[in-house]
Amino acid sequence: MQPGVITLTTDFGLGGSYVAALKGVLLDLVPGVQMVDVCHTIAPQNILEGGFVLAGVVDVFPKGTIHLAVIDPGVGTDRRLIAVETADQWFVLPDNGLITGVARGRWVKSVWEIASAELRRPVVSATFHGRDILAPAAAHLARGGDPAVLGPHRDHFIRLKNFESNRDERGFVGEVIFRDTFGNLVTNINADLLGEAMPRDWMIEIAGERIDGFVRTYGDRPAGSLVALVGSSGWVEIAITNGDAARHLTAGAGTTVWVRRR
Amino acid sequence: MQPGVITLTTDFGLGGSYVAALKGVLLDLVPGVQMVDVCHTIAPQNILEGGFVLAGVVDVFPKGTIHLAVIDPGVGTDRRLIAVETADQWFVLPDNGLITGVARGRWVKSVWEIASAELRRPVVSATFHGRDILAPAAAHLARGGDPAVLGPHRDHFIRLKNFESNRDERGFVGEVIFRDTFGNLVTNINADLLGEAMPRDWMIEIAGERIDGFVRTYGDRPAGSLVALVGSSGWVEIAITNGDAARHLTAGAGTTVWVRRR
Amino acid sequence: MQPGVITLTTDFGLGGSYVAALKGVLLDLVPGVQMVDVCHTIAPQNILEGGFVLAGVVDVFPKGTIHLAVIDPGVGTDRRLIAVETADQWFVLPDNGLITGVARGRWVKSVWEIASAELRRPVVSATFHGRDILAPAAAHLARGGDPAVLGPHRDHFIRLKNFESNRDERGFVGEVIFRDTFGNLVTNINADLLGEAMPRDWMIEIAGERIDGFVRTYGDRPAGSLVALVGSSGWVEIAITNGDAARHLTAGAGTTVWVRRR
Repeated sequence: MQPGVITLTTDFGLGGSYVAALKGVLLDLVPGVQMVDVCHTIAPQNILEGGFVLAGVVDVFPKGTIHLAVIDPGVGTDRRLIAVETADQWFVLPDNGLITGVARGRWVKSVWEIASAELRRPVVSATFHGRDILAPAAAHLARGGDPAVLGPHRDHFIRLKNFESNRDERGFVGEVIFRDTFGNLVTNINADLLGEAMPRDWMIEIAGERIDGFVRTYGDRPAGSLVALVGSSGWVEIAITNGDAARHLTAGAGTTVWVRRR
Repeated sequence: MQPGVITLTTDFGLGGSYVAALKGVLLDLVPGVQMVDVCHTIAPQNILEGGFVLAGVVDVFPKGTIHLAVIDPGVGTDRRLIAVETADQWFVLPDNGLITGVARGRWVKSVWEIASAELRRPVVSATFHGRDILAPAAAHLARGGDPAVLGPHRDHFIRLKNFESNRDERGFVGEVIFRDTFGNLVTNINADLLGEAMPRDWMIEIAGERIDGFVRTYGDRPAGSLVALVGSSGWVEIAITNGDAARHLTAGAGTTVWVRRR
Repeated sequence: MQPGVITLTTDFGLGGSYVAALKGVLLDLVPGVQMVDVCHTIAPQNILEGGFVLAGVVDVFPKGTIHLAVIDPGVGTDRRLIAVETADQWFVLPDNGLITGVARGRWVKSVWEIASAELRRPVVSATFHGRDILAPAAAHLARGGDPAVLGPHRDHFIRLKNFESNRDERGFVGEVIFRDTFGNLVTNINADLLGEAMPRDWMIEIAGERIDGFVRTYGDRPAGSLVALVGSSGWVEIAITNGDAARHLTAGAGTTVWVRRR
């Protein structure tokens, strides 16, 4: 049998051995398991950014993938750890809202609290539950283990409110939720809200600038043009063709964006 | 059978889920395929840097390796996507010059345009052909698929001119093409141009400084010395022993370098 | 048979193809070998930081893991290369002190010099022994090869002195040895020195600030509190709850830290 796939998403950064420690634990428990880094440069303790990035991988990974995500400002306190089953995949993470983007618009099949001491590493540190509790739980699921061994079944998990934009009579008010390497500004306004209206029926406002209508891709306008488009994950995105919109607009996570009918 | 090896080279950066999205698609189509990151911090849309970095891995990877490279400022426009067979390996990338360094001095066995709709993901976004078209094409080749399924055979691809230095009566004029983490400045002057001349027969000039002859390795001079040498990939390189030449010289990609006979 | 696991720790940075070159060599020699990045952003030529990071993975990786570590300011000079067997794992690296943290408190089973020309790549560059000598040596061990093929048995390796803090009549004087992504300051004062004393029996001083006693985890104090704790790898660590201690204290690697009995 092919050993499974486990992805990793953390705010551990690229320095140090924290990410490798997770991988060592996983490899020790599931020899040959395939591990894929999603992202380790989530801003420290930024659950919203982590939740957005994690949501971006659900539609491309194979069924049965286990996603381990550790953005855990409450480590060592009484926050819960959970395993969530959705989209034929598992998500193992703290119950602090990190699952919000993944769960958006998807049927959640089951939620389990990771509470049993059985699977934990022999010594559990107070500051690194990712290594000592979550990684062994992910390994258990990757081996096809029964989720009931993790702990009790739950019917609830925490969702972050600012994952959703607001609607008003003229359209939508949202915010930038992620700035990518190119300086593209991805918002929390999902294309599914725009319905059947034509791309040119909308006007987009951000940081005092107005953009008339959506384009299909960056190259549809000359270099240097400020454009709005629906990005590759389905979210409204502000960009500059061959340029850096974040720098040009002095905008980033949290900047307000309006999408209005003209 | 051992599943193959696919490498990845992009300008996607380390934030976000773009690189992981490529990997999810590859894993879904080729379970167990081994994926190796070459580099994801190519400066945005810098085809020259991407082409140089990609060229650095050809001589070390096993036969049959598939290299997926996505530096694609023209995404969604009418630029071509190609698969190139050389050095017993495959290169899957946009036809924008990214293959230049790999093809330099190597026999190119075949070139195919990636044009068929057959292998693409069901929905092709206008901004992420790496995920929706190139990754499935790379997966097809990794499974040993017939390249003719990708699209028509081609006898041409785009080459970048500034991958080659110029010759004059006294030697060579080139430019810095890559600055590494140590601040070493790698140029586009290849050691194969220097022929049989002795290392001390040359004088190197950069940013107003003269260096007498080539050394064999950094440690051949005391700490702080500005030296020139032939780097580990065969290109002339300017360095400071245990120091940062780029910072010292305020030099980087594009800085002119002369290599002259004394 | 499951192919083994090889980890990689370097100061190569994330730009360029240097890390991928190591991996290409390993994959060519050990098809299917599983490679895990520990860290590639060790400050250039910082053997102390590299040794600390490497030490952080020993306790989590499975028996038989091969660790390849390349922080090698002396490349091409007469410094030795070694393979060290300890904790049922192998460490392949320059003999410049990089093994210090791993060897601390562990029984070293054997040390071999990597001196034989037999395993090297056909052309050995003067500047990249990681690729041309160390990676083939690591591959040899990963294939279960006899270490005696590498070169002669040795009974000595270099240890860095500043891996150990100093003791005085009131406690311990050490220094910050690693700053993580969160701004936590990890010191070279190991918890095993603190013995049976209670957490509140100690006073910690750094950068002109005093901290009364150790906490168990970051969340034990309100956001913004300066705290001392024993980190997840067993070293005394200075942190700010949900904040950045390094920035707040303007402290980093080398900053002096006192741990005193009250």
